[in-house]
Amino acid sequence: MRYAPTIARLIAELGKLPGIGNKSAQRLAFHILSMPSEDVLSLSDSIVSARNSVRLCSVCQNYTDRDPCSVCSDTNRDPTMICVVENPRDVSTMERMRDYQGLYHVLHGVYSPLQNVGLDALKLKELITRLQQNDKVREVIIATNQTAEGEATALYISRLIKPSGIRVTRIASGLPMGSDLEFADDVTLSKAMRARHEF
Amino acid sequence: MRYAPTIARLIAELGKLPGIGNKSAQRLAFHILSMPSEDVLSLSDSIVSARNSVRLCSVCQNYTDRDPCSVCSDTNRDPTMICVVENPRDVSTMERMRDYQGLYHVLHGVYSPLQNVGLDALKLKELITRLQQNDKVREVIIATNQTAEGEATALYISRLIKPSGIRVTRIASGLPMGSDLEFADDVTLSKAMRARHEF
Repeated sequence: MRYAPTIARLIAELGKLPGIGNKSAQRLAFHILSMPSEDVLSLSDSIVSARNSVRLCSVCQNYTDRDPCSVCSDTNRDPTMICVVENPRDVSTMERMRDYQGLYHVLHGVYSPLQNVGLDALKLKELITRLQQNDKVREVIIATNQTAEGEATALYISRLIKPSGIRVTRIASGLPMGSDLEFADDVTLSKAMRARHEF
Repeated sequence: MRYAPTIARLIAELGKLPGIGNKSAQRLAFHILSMPSEDVLSLSDSIVSARNSVRLCSVCQNYTDRDPCSVCSDTNRDPTMICVVENPRDVSTMERMRDYQGLYHVLHGVYSPLQNVGLDALKLKELITRLQQNDKVREVIIATNQTAEGEATALYISRLIKPSGIRVTRIASGLPMGSDLEFADDVTLSKAMRARHEF
């Protein structure tokens, strides 16, 4: 089907987004074409203005529209703890838990030589500088994903920070709540066995 | 998590799109925030310019950026056949087949009283006017979906057109190619049985 060029371009642009294949892109494009003009303008404007107004917080490197961000500037939060996460989405995931009251540090990636992401690409210098300039921090919790890359990055950061005497911890891995033993993979199961604890 | 207002707005706007839930909207939003500025502008511009430049073809009611559309103005196509479909996406689906050489008519919906879509909302008047003003048409193939609403609409259109003497046909329903009898639903199976034919 030869789409009109503007439709073809819209489908191509939408198809570049993560998780949007060609079929989804077509569906979205046809939906957009059927939307009222003002809704389309609002969608388009929200995209540009979010991208333009959002910067990285100079303290924790999370996305923010004011600097420092709302978490870093919140005096009710515990400044002795920093939770290191891979990306800004992980901060919202942690915040959903409503349990952690400390601060964050966003790496914007993990060490992944296979995908050409070196250690220089991560916001590690910023973390080290932050720890050097601030003697309140007592614990750094590394909450990178439980993947090979996440584990490697966690190990590297822990070795980087340990000499400074700050406590470095890693969030636990094990069987997810509500999960069946039967469906657990071997690595998770063996980690869960090794991390067993007394009642 | 209290997102920055611009991020919250972007997530809300993306979440309005079909098939994009809150989690997908967050993922897309964070992806957009990490895209180079020029790519973001290009995405946003493609949305607005597609919506602004695309109109309905005055003949077949399909989306187009010139009037009449590329199909209606193609003199190589067979003007004696009109295939009636529910929406513009269905035209691209039919065209993918590369088998049908006639013209189209897009209804932009089906009769669906439960969803408050009356017959007036469909491009039916346009179809009737088109048939009255054009004596070349010999057959109208109704290719609305095989749903209750699609069937009802097909029946209604067939009754509307029949008095004019034009042949009205319905695309066949039956077992999809490559499908297992075991997994066919009863209605499909009974339709396939009734529509059986000799070798």
